[in-house]
Amino acid sequence: MNDRIRTAALLATGDEIVGGRTLDTNSFYLADKLAALGIDVVSIMAVSDDVDRIERAWKISLAAADLVISTGGLGPTSDDLTTETVARVADAELRLDQRQVARIREIFGRRGRPMPDNNLRQAMIPVGAEVVDNADGTAPGYRLRINTAEGRRPWGVVLPGVPREMKAMFEASVLPWIAECTDPGRVIVATTFQTFGLPESALDELLRGVVPASEGRLAFRASFPKISVRVSVTGGPEGAASRLQTMAEAVRTRLGGAVYAEGDASMEQIVGELLTAANKSLATAESCTGGLIGSRLTDVAGSSIYYRGGLVAYSNDLKQRLLGVDAQTLRTHGAVSEETARGMALGAVRVAATDIAVATTGIAGPGGGTEDKPVGTVAIALATRSGGDDYEVDSRMYRFWGGREWVKTLTSQVALDWVRRSLLGLPPLEPEALSPRRRAVSAARGGEIS
Amino acid sequence: MNDRIRTAALLATGDEIVGGRTLDTNSFYLADKLAALGIDVVSIMAVSDDVDRIERAWKISLAAADLVISTGGLGPTSDDLTTETVARVADAELRLDQRQVARIREIFGRRGRPMPDNNLRQAMIPVGAEVVDNADGTAPGYRLRINTAEGRRPWGVVLPGVPREMKAMFEASVLPWIAECTDPGRVIVATTFQTFGLPESALDELLRGVVPASEGRLAFRASFPKISVRVSVTGGPEGAASRLQTMAEAVRTRLGGAVYAEGDASMEQIVGELLTAANKSLATAESCTGGLIGSRLTDVAGSSIYYRGGLVAYSNDLKQRLLGVDAQTLRTHGAVSEETARGMALGAVRVAATDIAVATTGIAGPGGGTEDKPVGTVAIALATRSGGDDYEVDSRMYRFWGGREWVKTLTSQVALDWVRRSLLGLPPLEPEALSPRRRAVSAARGGEIS
Repeated sequence: MNDRIRTAALLATGDEIVGGRTLDTNSFYLADKLAALGIDVVSIMAVSDDVDRIERAWKISLAAADLVISTGGLGPTSDDLTTETVARVADAELRLDQRQVARIREIFGRRGRPMPDNNLRQAMIPVGAEVVDNADGTAPGYRLRINTAEGRRPWGVVLPGVPREMKAMFEASVLPWIAECTDPGRVIVATTFQTFGLPESALDELLRGVVPASEGRLAFRASFPKISVRVSVTGGPEGAASRLQTMAEAVRTRLGGAVYAEGDASMEQIVGELLTAANKSLATAESCTGGLIGSRLTDVAGSSIYYRGGLVAYSNDLKQRLLGVDAQTLRTHGAVSEETARGMALGAVRVAATDIAVATTGIAGPGGGTEDKPVGTVAIALATRSGGDDYEVDSRMYRFWGGREWVKTLTSQVALDWVRRSLLGLPPLEPEALSPRRRAVSAARGGEIS
Repeated sequence: MNDRIRTAALLATGDEIVGGRTLDTNSFYLADKLAALGIDVVSIMAVSDDVDRIERAWKISLAAADLVISTGGLGPTSDDLTTETVARVADAELRLDQRQVARIREIFGRRGRPMPDNNLRQAMIPVGAEVVDNADGTAPGYRLRINTAEGRRPWGVVLPGVPREMKAMFEASVLPWIAECTDPGRVIVATTFQTFGLPESALDELLRGVVPASEGRLAFRASFPKISVRVSVTGGPEGAASRLQTMAEAVRTRLGGAVYAEGDASMEQIVGELLTAANKSLATAESCTGGLIGSRLTDVAGSSIYYRGGLVAYSNDLKQRLLGVDAQTLRTHGAVSEETARGMALGAVRVAATDIAVATTGIAGPGGGTEDKPVGTVAIALATRSGGDDYEVDSRMYRFWGGREWVKTLTSQVALDWVRRSLLGLPPLEPEALSPRRRAVSAARGGEIS
C-alpha cells in the first residue's frame, strides 16, 4: 500500500541553531531512531524563525519524503512560528484545542501562576491534525497529512524543540506509529551491545554472518572510547523476537568479554552493578587521570554504596606520603612504571580499607614524554584483598595515543574495564589490543591519512 | 556592489550524519563564525552520500544564499561525491591539479607508503576554482562561482569533513576572504569574554548601551556553566580596533569579577595561570564532586606545576581518617555542612602541604535529600595558608538545582571560581547569586515552563 513511510526529512527551527549558538541535537537523535526503523533520511535541515524560510523548508522537505518531522518553534512567543506556517503549507485552519488549554492552564496553576494569554498560542492546532501529547511541558505536538502540489500526501509531525520533551513524545507516541506505518503488521525488535577493546574492523569480522541481510541489520556506532553494536530484526510479530534472541546470543558468544553492557548502561554503571552484586568496595589512586575515574564512578546515583573514595596523587610527594609508595621504587623505576602503579594500588586498597583498588600513572602529554616513555605511556594496576591482610596486585603498561583528554579518557576506561573484568574472573585487556599500530590499521581502511 | 556576501547556506554531506551516527558539528562551528561576521545563515542542510541528493541540496542552497559552504565528501573513496556533483552543478570540467598530486604523494611518502591511485580523486578540482590549501590532510578544498538558473552567481566553498582540517582551512583562508567580500575595505574586530555567576538577563541589563547597534553587536552564548559575551565591531580599519578597545573596557568595568577570561580559556586554565603567577600550590578534597575538580584541573597541560593532588573522600570514614575531619563535627553537623567542608579543606591543605585547598561536600541526588537539606545542597570551603602553620578557612552553603551531573558540574565551577577569586582578592560567589529562584526568574522570561 502506498501509505508506507519509507523516507523522512528532518527540519529544525530556531535562530539559535542557524546562529551557531545551539547544536541541533534533536535531528541527530531522530536520525538515529529513524535509521533503526530502516527509514531513509533524505535530508536534515535547519532554518531561522522566519515564516518564509520555514515555509520554504517545509515545501522542500515535503517534496522529498514520505514523512517530515519538525522540531522547535512551538513556544508561546511571537518568534514561534511553526504552527502558523504549517497551517499555511497544509492549507488548514487553526482551531483552539480546549483540552490543551485546560492542560496548559493546569500546569501554570500547579506553579501558582495564572496562564499568560500568549500561551493560548500553544493550544492552536491545525484542523484535521491529531494531537501528540506532551507530558512534560506546555507545548503539545501533532501530526497531519499535507497535500503537495504534486498530488502526494506526505505526513508532517510537529514536535517542540526542548530535547527532553521532544524525546519523550517521540518515544511514547510517534515511534510506535511510524513503525506501524513503515511496515504494517510487522515489527522491528532491536538490542544494543556496548563494547570496549576491539576496533570496529575486528567487531565487523567477528560478527560476519550473524545477521543475514534478509533478516535484519547490524549497525556500529563509535563514540570514543566505546563502540555500540545494534542488532535489529524486522518481521512478523511471531518470529522476530525469537530470531533476535538467537542473533543476540551469537553476538554474546562471539564478542565475549568485549561486551560490557546490553542496552544503554555506561561502563561505570556496570562496574557499580557488579560491585554491588559481589558486595565489594572500591578505591582509586589516580595520577595521570587526575580524578576522572572517581568522577565517572560518582556520576552513578547511589555509588557511595561501593565507592569509598581515593587519592589523586599527582605529585611524587603525595604518592609517597599518602599511598606509601616506596621512594626507592620511584627513583629506580620512575613515577610512570608498573612498580609505582602497583605501589599506588596497594597503598589505596590498604588506606581506604576496600576490597579492590585501581591505580593509574602515566604521561598524558603534550609534554613530559621521553624516548623510553613517550606521551601516552600509562601504567595501570589493580589490587584486590584476597582475605585478611593479604593482597594481590597485577599491573600492565599501555602505550596509548591521541591528545591529553583522549589519553585520560582511555586510561579511565581501561581501568574501569579492568575492575569489571576482575569481578567477572576475566583477565585485563592486554596492551597489544590497544596499541596505536592496531588503530592505524583500522584507520587506514578508509584510505585517509590524517 | 552586488558582490557582497550577505547570506550563506551550509551543507554537510555524509551517510553518517543523516544516519544519526555522527553529529554535524562542522555546520555548528561555521554558523557561529558566520554570525560573528554579521552574515545571515538562511539554512543548514545535511544529505547522504548520493549524487542526486547532493545536487538537489546544492541547488536549494545556491538559490537562497550568496555563499554556500559544503563540508564532507572529499575523501578518496567511491562514496565521496562532492566534487563530481559540484562540477555538474557548476557545469565545469574537472582538472587534475598537479601541485595537489605532488602534495598528496608527499604526505604518503612521509609515512613510507605509496599513494593509492584512488587518492588522485582528491586532486581533481573544477576548472575555474581556486584551491584552498589543506595543511593537515590529503583533501584540498576550493572555492568557485556558480551560475544559477536565475542568472545569479553565488559562491561555493568546498571543504573536507574532518573537523580539524576544515576548521584550520576555514580560519586560515576562507574567513579572511569572506570578511573582505562581506564588507570590502571594512574590518570586523571582535573579542569574547567568558563569564560565570550572572544569568544572561543580568548580563544583558548590565551591558545595556555598551555596544550601540550602529557600531557593532553584542552576542551571548550560554554553554553551561558559563556564558560567553562577544563584542564585535564593524568599520573602517582605522577606527574599529580603538572602538572595540573602548567597548571591551566598558564590559570589563561593568561585569567586574564575573568575567573570568578573555578569549577561549577555560576556568581551569585561568586558575592554573593565576596559581603559576602567584607561585602557589593547590590541593582538593572532594566528596560530592567525586574527583571532577581534580580531573578538570589536570585537563590543563602542565598542571603538575601547581596542582599537587587531593583526596576523594566519598565516605565519612575517609573524611575522618585521611582528612582528619572531627567525628564530632560529622555527628553534630552532618557530612553536608559548612563545618565538615571546612574540616576537609583544612585537612587537605595540611596533608598535601599546599598554599590553598578547596573542598566540596553535598547531595548530588537524586537520592539522599532531606527537607532540611534537599538535593542540590552543597557546602564548599577554601583553606589558605597564611604563613607557617597558620591557616585561614572560609565556607559557603549553596542550594543548586538540576540533575546529578548538573550539580557536580556547578559545584566544580563554583569551587574553581572561588580559587580564582581568592587569588584576585575577590570574595566568593554568594549563594544568592546562584539560587534556583534567580534561575526561575531568568527562565520565565521566555514564558516557557519546563
